[in-house]
Amino acid sequence: MFWRRKKMGQARIHDDFWNRYRDLVRGTVIPYQWEALNDRVEGAEPSHAIRNFRIAAGLEEGTFGGFVFQDSDLAKWLEAVGYSLASDPDPELERIADGAIELIAQAQQENGYLNTYFTIKEPGKSWTNLLDCHELYCAGHMIEAAVAYYHGTGKRRLLDMMCKFADYIEEVFGAEEGKLPGYDGHQEIELALVKLYEATGELRYLKLSTYFIDQRGQEPSYFMEEWERRGRMGYWQPGVKTRQPDLAYTQSHLPVRQQTVAVGHAVRAVYMYTAMADLARLNGDAELAAACRTLWGNMTRKQMYITGGIGSTHHGEAFTFDYDLPNDTVYAETCASIGLIFFAQRMLRLEARSEYADVMERALYNNVIGSMSQDGKHYFYVNPLEVWPEASCKNPGRHHVKAVRQPWFGCSCCPPNVARLLSSLNDYIYTTDEKERTVYAHLFIGSEGSFWLGDGELSLQMSARLPWEGHVQLDIRGNTAGESTLALRLPDWCGGQAQLAVNGQPVAYEMRDGYARVTRAWQAGDSVSWELAMKPTWMAAHPSVRANSGKVALQRGPLVYCLEAADNRSPLTALAVSPSGRLSEQLDNELPGGVIAIHGEGFVDPEATGDEQLYLPIESAGAAEPFTWKAIPYYLWGNRGEGEMSVWVRRTN
Amino acid sequence: MFWRRKKMGQARIHDDFWNRYRDLVRGTVIPYQWEALNDRVEGAEPSHAIRNFRIAAGLEEGTFGGFVFQDSDLAKWLEAVGYSLASDPDPELERIADGAIELIAQAQQENGYLNTYFTIKEPGKSWTNLLDCHELYCAGHMIEAAVAYYHGTGKRRLLDMMCKFADYIEEVFGAEEGKLPGYDGHQEIELALVKLYEATGELRYLKLSTYFIDQRGQEPSYFMEEWERRGRMGYWQPGVKTRQPDLAYTQSHLPVRQQTVAVGHAVRAVYMYTAMADLARLNGDAELAAACRTLWGNMTRKQMYITGGIGSTHHGEAFTFDYDLPNDTVYAETCASIGLIFFAQRMLRLEARSEYADVMERALYNNVIGSMSQDGKHYFYVNPLEVWPEASCKNPGRHHVKAVRQPWFGCSCCPPNVARLLSSLNDYIYTTDEKERTVYAHLFIGSEGSFWLGDGELSLQMSARLPWEGHVQLDIRGNTAGESTLALRLPDWCGGQAQLAVNGQPVAYEMRDGYARVTRAWQAGDSVSWELAMKPTWMAAHPSVRANSGKVALQRGPLVYCLEAADNRSPLTALAVSPSGRLSEQLDNELPGGVIAIHGEGFVDPEATGDEQLYLPIESAGAAEPFTWKAIPYYLWGNRGEGEMSVWVRRTN
Repeated sequence: MFWRRKKMGQARIHDDFWNRYRDLVRGTVIPYQWEALNDRVEGAEPSHAIRNFRIAAGLEEGTFGGFVFQDSDLAKWLEAVGYSLASDPDPELERIADGAIELIAQAQQENGYLNTYFTIKEPGKSWTNLLDCHELYCAGHMIEAAVAYYHGTGKRRLLDMMCKFADYIEEVFGAEEGKLPGYDGHQEIELALVKLYEATGELRYLKLSTYFIDQRGQEPSYFMEEWERRGRMGYWQPGVKTRQPDLAYTQSHLPVRQQTVAVGHAVRAVYMYTAMADLARLNGDAELAAACRTLWGNMTRKQMYITGGIGSTHHGEAFTFDYDLPNDTVYAETCASIGLIFFAQRMLRLEARSEYADVMERALYNNVIGSMSQDGKHYFYVNPLEVWPEASCKNPGRHHVKAVRQPWFGCSCCPPNVARLLSSLNDYIYTTDEKERTVYAHLFIGSEGSFWLGDGELSLQMSARLPWEGHVQLDIRGNTAGESTLALRLPDWCGGQAQLAVNGQPVAYEMRDGYARVTRAWQAGDSVSWELAMKPTWMAAHPSVRANSGKVALQRGPLVYCLEAADNRSPLTALAVSPSGRLSEQLDNELPGGVIAIHGEGFVDPEATGDEQLYLPIESAGAAEPFTWKAIPYYLWGNRGEGEMSVWVRRTN
Repeated sequence: MFWRRKKMGQARIHDDFWNRYRDLVRGTVIPYQWEALNDRVEGAEPSHAIRNFRIAAGLEEGTFGGFVFQDSDLAKWLEAVGYSLASDPDPELERIADGAIELIAQAQQENGYLNTYFTIKEPGKSWTNLLDCHELYCAGHMIEAAVAYYHGTGKRRLLDMMCKFADYIEEVFGAEEGKLPGYDGHQEIELALVKLYEATGELRYLKLSTYFIDQRGQEPSYFMEEWERRGRMGYWQPGVKTRQPDLAYTQSHLPVRQQTVAVGHAVRAVYMYTAMADLARLNGDAELAAACRTLWGNMTRKQMYITGGIGSTHHGEAFTFDYDLPNDTVYAETCASIGLIFFAQRMLRLEARSEYADVMERALYNNVIGSMSQDGKHYFYVNPLEVWPEASCKNPGRHHVKAVRQPWFGCSCCPPNVARLLSSLNDYIYTTDEKERTVYAHLFIGSEGSFWLGDGELSLQMSARLPWEGHVQLDIRGNTAGESTLALRLPDWCGGQAQLAVNGQPVAYEMRDGYARVTRAWQAGDSVSWELAMKPTWMAAHPSVRANSGKVALQRGPLVYCLEAADNRSPLTALAVSPSGRLSEQLDNELPGGVIAIHGEGFVDPEATGDEQLYLPIESAGAAEPFTWKAIPYYLWGNRGEGEMSVWVRRTN
């Protein structure tokens, strides 16, 4: 089945901006995370992940360490390795990964079951606490790893192991008498089984995924019954009776088709929506597709930060409600934005509409790459839009907001998630529609790709200067498919100002669902240029977003900008920008190569003189004075030590 | 010793504004709270307080209910009753209170010990968990009740009971071999023992209070050692090992004289500072007085809301750090502002400086009376400066902020605290300085009072129209003390614009520490008028208060104003006020009698048209339009159902 992958189209990135990230993931992040998984990073909390597998495999004595879902860290790392090996073969890395896979094999039980927590700590208790214990979640991540490693290396070892596990899961779960009518507290297995189906062609995996999705939220609630069976105990506080499960937290409060609003734990939500979009496409399920559209609309039009972050509260790492987007107590977990990108990608596979790609690009260029330090070794789990470092330390309601990236987390879901996304970014640039004989370009990232259109292949090379310039060029490298359509996304940030030319000549094109479509019998040597207006733009939030009233944010192309105290002053809140003032775009030498900073006009409140009264008549304060501020791309914030940062800034009238 | 009270000066309130509150406390709050203490208020959480005493007294079977400090609710109620009976005798109320005191007597143990929790639930475990269990705190409240009831009725029954308890406490605690070198996790006993000393003249109570204050925070930490003795267990999660105590939470991280910054649980802090100021005065302790001034300065100039609220976070109901005053996630507990008023009163007794009275007035007219509904039956525990009701429900970080006053709380410290403050408000208006032969008027509340000046008595009547007008008049009713000084506070809100006249003639006066001083051999019939400018004033916060940048608050006299959606629109954040615009003060008929609302000019952002994009270039939004807004006194907010409210509002430039 290895050929399936080729048929779907494959792209390879060559891009000034993204090469750096690919090299960083390959050269630094993957090796660094391997050290972390082996508890060899000094000063970082130990992962315990490899050690757990060694204990479960009988190679070492000891007890389980880390979170109940610690296995998934190794799985996500292996998945990233699979993607990396696909584009950049590396025998030494492959040798290490093969060794890890053999270790996993030793930890896997005869019947296919794999989970180091239950093997080491609660043997015999498998599947008794689906709500809390992430068994199917860990299974899902290992399945994703298996598929990626198979595609990257052609090796079936882990894939076969995971098919065995999936087959066992199918024996345990289902509607049939004697099976458990359950599903996991943390969605993940659903989207993984779709990948397993696509890699193997085995329909039973698609059916099992469909079962999990459709069973979720049905009455009577599996989680309620399970909780009763456990004597109303939970995992997190052993021996303590817990309140009844908050079903909305796990999106199991309603059957998924009846859900209209994004609620609960944000990562669980978007992983679930991703699988829903997959199944809507693969099963031709219009009702499920409609539910996906509704949830997408609620989430991206009412509950998403301008950086592509989702999750407004750290309580349950969750959505709150429409238009509640506090900048300071924000959550905006890295993993949630990655899940949002997954969902967007699947919606694009379901139906090409530029809004999905707009959001994907927003999350990618801002929240996601902003979560990683420029050295690839430090990460944000929470991605705030406003930081006051002293408050992060001294106000407990903001302790979750870190002012500097951390080396590793006890709950380290985010760093390996970044690695697997960035090492598979080539999969997010294009989709094809064989029926319509169309190749869609969703992201503008320098790359070469070949796309199967049913009767032949279109090969092309994209060059782009994003995120700094709006010039995109597609050069046709070969075509055996006859007439076909190139559909180029018109991004939301160019204000509709775009010019399309073929071989240097402006041509007419059709706009459909946010894509400029040109149809030709393409020939090698043809060249399409797509010029997108890119200029700094002041953005305002919907008036119902209380947190941003009277404020504006600066965006240029896909990049959201922010102000840091390092370039301006503290308190940052003393600044008000003048949206009508001149903006100057300057190549900045202080920041990592080739970054455009923006300078502009505004006013600054007078400085405090010291120990004055807290409250005074406004006449007592001096007048604001002109001030030239500087903004940098959000993704680069926090790389110069601790300091205040803000995306949304006060505006003058 | 009953005479001591008379000698210190007694005032009786006759005031249009405050009579309502006195009557409300007497006619509604006290009876209502008695019902609540007896678990007879439908729809309110049961108090368990009386029932606990009945069980401890052996009159009823059952187990302890409510918080470990539930006894203090009955104590605070009895204290309020004592104050109320002093000004308004009421035989039926006194009969009920006498009955409650007899019940308490039956629950008291032979050796004087009184605490229903330990009597019922953990006999033999007394004094093993001072950190968590509030034993001395409850003792302190009962002592305060005893003193108030003695002053109000002349009856010594409860006072004698509490002297016995205090004598027992003195046997248990102290520096001597065999005694416990401890102090309570929640300060209260310290200020109570000062009151017991002042009521009885027994120096040992003053010494015991001094011991508790000076022992606090000494090394080795009593709380650390106690925690080790308990096997590192706490009260709140039985059987569970806890992290080591956060000593700053209980202000026991340092000896009190070395503390310079207000930290930890806000109520504990101000109760402690109150005792410190008492002891500084009574012991002539200059070092302690200096510590009080430093802590006062930090708290009121860097950590206080404009409403006189303190405590910036619900995590530990605590201070956070300088200038961190979020309006939406605020705590500003009612009890904390009441404690702030206690502290201010003691500082005024220590040294008359108008800043203490300014803060006292600010907390009283805004945070404290705002906490109670106009019917006296509903209360805020948290007093926010910004409310978005939907966020209070749906964002867990704001669940503590209620959008409407609640009928009673499981932890119901605040309602009886309001009752005892309002029923003793006459004690906060004046102080005397016998040595300087001066009567200070700190608050402008219609009242009559007689003041002993060492060799005779000055009697006077104050009339005032606060908070609506700045006219104050003092009529001398009698004088047997020869020449003396009247010192009238120049409040911070009049901008220095005040006129003093004696018998209709402007006179020269000396300003000292914020008081206008006039010295005369006063004669009955003399009349002093004190005209204070009162006009709406736009206030700005210190520029380091990030939460209020670009915003203003409206104040008129002692009253802080706020905007409510009911009078304006939702979202309130769409409004920007024009500080240079005309302000109109209007008697408002919709609000409880005689209230002045303020109307003014501003702009409003265009309304949302529905389901548009979350983020758009600012050109896409329409222009702001002129808008006439209406502000009402903060203390009246939330009396018209749920709706948005904000004290700080955006300003135009």
